[in-house]
Amino acid sequence: MANIINYNSWDTNFKTPFGALKTCESAIIKVESSKAFDVCSIKLIIEKEDENLNPVLVRELELQQSGENEKVREYSVEISPLEQPATYYYFLSVEVNLYGEQKTLFYGKQANNGMICEYNYDDLNKYQLTVYEDYKVPSWFKEGVLYHVFVDRFNNGNRSGKVDNPKKNSFLYGNWEDDPMYIKDQNGEILRWDFHGGNLKGIINKLGYLKKLGVTVIYLSPIFEAASNHKYDTGNYKNIDPMFGDEKIFKELIDKAAEKGMAVVLDGVFSHIGADSIYFNKFNNYDSVGAYQSEDSPYRTWFNFKEGPEEYQSWWGIKALPNTNELEPSFMDYIIYDKDSVINKWMNMGVKGWRLDVADELPTKFIQELKKEVKKNNEESIVIGEVWEDASNKISYGERRTYLLGDQLDSVLGYPFRDNLVDFLNGEKTSWQLNDFFMTIKENYPSEAFKSNLNLLSSHDIVRIKTALKSDKDLLKLAILTQMSFEGVPYIYYGDEAGLEGGKDPENRKTYPWKNEDMEIMDFYRHCSQFRNRNKVFALGDTYFIYTENDDVFGYIRYNEDDSELILINRSESKQNVKINLEADCIEEVTVTYSVINNGEKIIGIDNKFNIDIDSKSYRIFKLWK
Amino acid sequence: MANIINYNSWDTNFKTPFGALKTCESAIIKVESSKAFDVCSIKLIIEKEDENLNPVLVRELELQQSGENEKVREYSVEISPLEQPATYYYFLSVEVNLYGEQKTLFYGKQANNGMICEYNYDDLNKYQLTVYEDYKVPSWFKEGVLYHVFVDRFNNGNRSGKVDNPKKNSFLYGNWEDDPMYIKDQNGEILRWDFHGGNLKGIINKLGYLKKLGVTVIYLSPIFEAASNHKYDTGNYKNIDPMFGDEKIFKELIDKAAEKGMAVVLDGVFSHIGADSIYFNKFNNYDSVGAYQSEDSPYRTWFNFKEGPEEYQSWWGIKALPNTNELEPSFMDYIIYDKDSVINKWMNMGVKGWRLDVADELPTKFIQELKKEVKKNNEESIVIGEVWEDASNKISYGERRTYLLGDQLDSVLGYPFRDNLVDFLNGEKTSWQLNDFFMTIKENYPSEAFKSNLNLLSSHDIVRIKTALKSDKDLLKLAILTQMSFEGVPYIYYGDEAGLEGGKDPENRKTYPWKNEDMEIMDFYRHCSQFRNRNKVFALGDTYFIYTENDDVFGYIRYNEDDSELILINRSESKQNVKINLEADCIEEVTVTYSVINNGEKIIGIDNKFNIDIDSKSYRIFKLWK
Repeated sequence: MANIINYNSWDTNFKTPFGALKTCESAIIKVESSKAFDVCSIKLIIEKEDENLNPVLVRELELQQSGENEKVREYSVEISPLEQPATYYYFLSVEVNLYGEQKTLFYGKQANNGMICEYNYDDLNKYQLTVYEDYKVPSWFKEGVLYHVFVDRFNNGNRSGKVDNPKKNSFLYGNWEDDPMYIKDQNGEILRWDFHGGNLKGIINKLGYLKKLGVTVIYLSPIFEAASNHKYDTGNYKNIDPMFGDEKIFKELIDKAAEKGMAVVLDGVFSHIGADSIYFNKFNNYDSVGAYQSEDSPYRTWFNFKEGPEEYQSWWGIKALPNTNELEPSFMDYIIYDKDSVINKWMNMGVKGWRLDVADELPTKFIQELKKEVKKNNEESIVIGEVWEDASNKISYGERRTYLLGDQLDSVLGYPFRDNLVDFLNGEKTSWQLNDFFMTIKENYPSEAFKSNLNLLSSHDIVRIKTALKSDKDLLKLAILTQMSFEGVPYIYYGDEAGLEGGKDPENRKTYPWKNEDMEIMDFYRHCSQFRNRNKVFALGDTYFIYTENDDVFGYIRYNEDDSELILINRSESKQNVKINLEADCIEEVTVTYSVINNGEKIIGIDNKFNIDIDSKSYRIFKLWK
Repeated sequence: MANIINYNSWDTNFKTPFGALKTCESAIIKVESSKAFDVCSIKLIIEKEDENLNPVLVRELELQQSGENEKVREYSVEISPLEQPATYYYFLSVEVNLYGEQKTLFYGKQANNGMICEYNYDDLNKYQLTVYEDYKVPSWFKEGVLYHVFVDRFNNGNRSGKVDNPKKNSFLYGNWEDDPMYIKDQNGEILRWDFHGGNLKGIINKLGYLKKLGVTVIYLSPIFEAASNHKYDTGNYKNIDPMFGDEKIFKELIDKAAEKGMAVVLDGVFSHIGADSIYFNKFNNYDSVGAYQSEDSPYRTWFNFKEGPEEYQSWWGIKALPNTNELEPSFMDYIIYDKDSVINKWMNMGVKGWRLDVADELPTKFIQELKKEVKKNNEESIVIGEVWEDASNKISYGERRTYLLGDQLDSVLGYPFRDNLVDFLNGEKTSWQLNDFFMTIKENYPSEAFKSNLNLLSSHDIVRIKTALKSDKDLLKLAILTQMSFEGVPYIYYGDEAGLEGGKDPENRKTYPWKNEDMEIMDFYRHCSQFRNRNKVFALGDTYFIYTENDDVFGYIRYNEDDSELILINRSESKQNVKINLEADCIEEVTVTYSVINNGEKIIGIDNKFNIDIDSKSYRIFKLWK
């Protein structure tokens, strides 16, 4: 049975413009109905959610017939600007005479792609329509390549290998190369912290190295005074940890990085604080009256005590990390508003942005206020959020989050990018499933957010990419190539470029293997970043995902007004062939360095149809010529 | 009822000479019998044990009446030389007519002191008579003061604090002051070794310090290459551990120590070897064919494999420490006999002696052969044994050990000295119990062995003395005073002199607190060692233990031909008085520095009876004048 109606939100023949709408923007929705059916009316219903996530009607628009051909009638309607930024949902309500009976059918979206028809409203999976306040992500970020430094493990700037200012009762690794491990008691609690001794001076010493890798943004794991090696347990937001350096060295890092065209972004951890801090002072290591110590502590209201000092709310029940009351005015003053607030102090020194740790656990209001202050301090700065899922519609703690509507985050971490890419490369997802996934994200995210999405392959919280790909270097190169040719900001986790492997934490936090790098991977990474930086279409262009009809071959075109580049990636163990339609007469291979076959080969399309072979676990890049 | 007979092996009126006999020496035994009883005969029965510890008759000697007075008859007999060194046992068999019946009574020794009468031979606790081959312990040792360095924790000779050559996957303490801890898994197995970074250079730097403390013998915890921080898991007997230094530095230490009049003694660990060694090579860290790796290993016969490589005998079941077959000829060649054997290699470099780790687990033959080679290499060298109990009669693994009979150990560790002294100071033993204990040891040990006994207060295997004395500094001083005025060699465990505290391992292995010493204790230790070194009677004199008849006051006289010094120690919280008989007319206080009361006071005896007060937790030392 033919479909009664036909609609595809990803096809600009049906919905234009593609994807999210600005508050000032209108859209046209077109639907086809089959003449085989007696369709009486088609309505477009637009809803949004109330605070309990219940749908509330926003608009009910009747589509009008706007054309027809032998088989179908075409209906359309214009959605005038929705004005209020929000995550809207819509569906089609179709009145049809079926076997003599008047029926109402509901048309929504099938999982990632396609359309589904339900008889029952409650079963409906609606289309998402993101409406956002227009915003611009600063181009230094959007066009950049980010490098994530886990400070303790990247580089020790002391030639002697001396570790600066080790903490009382701490352990230092005997050798830079030693495998990291946690020193825990039988209950899994940390007994002592372990340090390799990386520091800010060590980063300064490697700025040339980062430059050569094509890096333009250095994101540092937390650097403020804290007991642990990772420093997500802040001890004092206004001090550089003395193992890492001091303000003078940090300023030097910012300035020398800037000289080389690199910006520094910090990790802002505001949802919780170290129990061992000037604010909480559980262990009396600080010269302050901490919240744990006294009800009269100036920091008492920053935390939630149930009863007595022992019963306090903490992050995921970890007593070393008491949760903050982010919206407490004195906390917001201290972190955000004060002239010398945490945000202002470090930005005044030259910090260009913040990565908000566990953004899901920060109240929307806190993120909004923080972003305002950050932009007030420097219009050209950015706010990144640690969100692990589709950030356009995530529900956390019962709330639909609105990170990407313009007033909160400029960019989020691209864990979904990595997860789906790895699944594809490992043969666990097909190329069309990967396409569906990317199309969904691209549709849901404001265009600026998608262009700024942090396309990471590894981080300190997940298995390293090489390990996730079972140490297969060919697949690793495909991951790198994808990352570096993709829309969004490439995010390199220190050491990935040196071929570092590592499973879950702490293995993924091994030290950078200076003088022991895998130069094959290093050269490949450098080549890819040069490739990206040389051709602006990779950093700035739009993307058209291609359904290659070959499960093993993932393909997309990066394009702008001047240029179109086709990227094809074959993940399989064998040579694959694809036949694809392209709006081109000829394509010319530009994969010059790494795929020796067909260097510079030109393929002539026959009626825009191209027949292309790709070697096993290889990629090819072509320029499209008209 | 009066005693039927009377005998006291500690009284030279009954037995002369006191204590152990040389093989060439005869002895006179005297017994008194009460005239109130009808004693028919008194026999002295001397036995020794066969290899199953069953008694075998050696001599049966009838005592002859040799005098009488109003109340008692005196009997005596001479024991002609017993010739064969052994631990003999004797008792008295008395035929007596009791109420008209002829009875045989057996007289033996009661616990520590006194005499007990048994009707049944099997219940008898016999007197011990140690007969030994005469030997001399070199006077440099006998008259010395030993200092035990636990190398990783004593001093790092690198000014920068750099730790030399850290081992792969090891941890270094962040700070010299950090509290030591083991890094173990849930089964208690060591996961990684922890190091503070003490080294031989560090000892060289402190030779002046040791000299000032009065030290003349430096005993080093094991220094040969090994994975652990303690190095009882030898990896290579012929290499200095690279974290500690190298042969050049070790030679420098020996030579510089010698220049300052100090000898170096090493820890010889031969009952077991590290699984991670050139010999066993379980972890393939060495370039050798280890016993674990192949049946063809040249070291295979050194170990006991049950089946396959996994099933091997190990020390107390610790798989990291496979036991050796000490009597395996190739092992004995390697350790003892070869021209460049372990013993010879290091002695040729200037090492003056060996402390044999776990002597109880070394076969007698091995110790004998080792001692021969050691003396062959250098007549003036010494062999110390780690024995925790009375080394004259210890049974280990079903064998009565014969450590002190002349052909094995020169000296043993004085754990019993410490245990009993601590018990006295803590109020858990009375002064007469302490006397009984010391008299027993003095009786059982050859005179050279008692003079060489290592009077330790702490070691790496027990709670530090200050901690054992509940941090009471006054009691600590009494312990130090006793140690430094006692017969035997004072054994200072590094850091005790600085007031270091610490419970069981690893707390007793804290680093030496450089620049944070307790100077009160340090000064006291220095004073006592000066005191000892100034007056040869302390290092060389004999000892007469005094039954003070005051449970809280322990007393003894150190004497030689020229001099007699009385030491009185009051452990109690209150002032104590003793009235004691002394063979002197007058005593003169010589406790000049630390007990301000009665400095230089002279006390005149009345009929040789002296009435002396001692302040709470204090000591007094008097010179006896005739």
